[in-house]
Amino acid sequence: MTITSSDNPAIKELKRLQSSHARSRADVFVAEGEDLLEMAAVNGWKPERVLVREGCGLDGEEVEAELLDSLSSLGSGTRAIGIFTKTYVSEVSPGLVVHLAGLSDPGNVGTIIRSAHALGATGVSLGAETADPFGPKAVRASMGSVFAVPLHKGVAVSELPGSKVALAGGKATSVSQLPEGNLVLIVGSERAGVDAKTLELSDLIWEIPMVEGAESLNAAVAVSIALHAANRIPRNA
Amino acid sequence: MTITSSDNPAIKELKRLQSSHARSRADVFVAEGEDLLEMAAVNGWKPERVLVREGCGLDGEEVEAELLDSLSSLGSGTRAIGIFTKTYVSEVSPGLVVHLAGLSDPGNVGTIIRSAHALGATGVSLGAETADPFGPKAVRASMGSVFAVPLHKGVAVSELPGSKVALAGGKATSVSQLPEGNLVLIVGSERAGVDAKTLELSDLIWEIPMVEGAESLNAAVAVSIALHAANRIPRNA
Repeated sequence: MTITSSDNPAIKELKRLQSSHARSRADVFVAEGEDLLEMAAVNGWKPERVLVREGCGLDGEEVEAELLDSLSSLGSGTRAIGIFTKTYVSEVSPGLVVHLAGLSDPGNVGTIIRSAHALGATGVSLGAETADPFGPKAVRASMGSVFAVPLHKGVAVSELPGSKVALAGGKATSVSQLPEGNLVLIVGSERAGVDAKTLELSDLIWEIPMVEGAESLNAAVAVSIALHAANRIPRNA
Repeated sequence: MTITSSDNPAIKELKRLQSSHARSRADVFVAEGEDLLEMAAVNGWKPERVLVREGCGLDGEEVEAELLDSLSSLGSGTRAIGIFTKTYVSEVSPGLVVHLAGLSDPGNVGTIIRSAHALGATGVSLGAETADPFGPKAVRASMGSVFAVPLHKGVAVSELPGSKVALAGGKATSVSQLPEGNLVLIVGSERAGVDAKTLELSDLIWEIPMVEGAESLNAAVAVSIALHAANRIPRNA
């Protein structure tokens, strides 16, 4: 039975999730496109439901093409949309953890999760005032890595395992060398950087050498450079 | 005399530049906000004209606040908009050059220019099929670094000075060590990476080590990691 009515409960749920207010309170999120759904499957995520374009041959509840496209957040329409339960992992594995302390841009959050995955982070911890990693822009920018990297929420910085390294420039005590052992890389907001309170909880401040007159790097770029640098440092395994 | 009419030539020009088609043919571009205008001034760029909100105290032709806001590409309105002549530098300085071979996302292009500035690149070369670095999204993502980094256009890869290093993973001949001396870092399109023809022109292929199952890094992230790594390698100066 192809779904053709916008009164269908699944369609209504998807419509509701187009509002960011509804999304923030929902315990489910949407992932669009076959690449993301495959990434979910590979990593053992089971969708609550999958809606697919009628006749496209993919597994899922078939929906009239035009109706499904009207629910797509991509410009070009879509062949498959999955609904998943937002899942945070409570235990943080030591190694190479990224902590986001107030990163407000969902594209940056998603890009960092993508880098965290590619560069072997053991988890990404989402601090207060940080964009929802399960919002559509973040999920898309992550290229599906939200399904691959353990995400943590509400863990105090002091509880995260390893040396706390704040990414911040221009401080008197900044160093450009990362320590050995387990690391927690801390990045602050796009505008203000790591806040004073979090800086105080940090064991050291790591600075990326920049040319004079250059203001800063994009937050996702800075974290990714730190992750790449961290991969050259011995850790306890 | 405060400009209050949308028939004013300066206002009409700005309106026209809101269309991407008009922008691509124009030899001028728009930079919005005091931070960007200051970045331009610091780097010796002289605007064709500057429009400012009436009574704000900034230098420029005063415009009725509501009219100026209607021309803003930022959500929150603006206090100053500058119009500049698109400027490419014909001579490429050897050292650390970034070549963009078909990067279609203007946000990525701007972020790369921001990183190129911060991490000491001597220039950014824009290849065919690459997003306009002077478009509003690119200018904004660059945080004004379009005014600080020499931009080159239409220079053949073979004419760029230094070892040609393609950023690409998964090739049999990929290495994770950058060579000494002058470098040209080549990044391809977001989807397809560096095309075969450009790969052939490259002296070597540089790969960022990634975990199994991870597909890739964001293009701007990959270039920035390469720039950071290049800064640890001796160059001829």
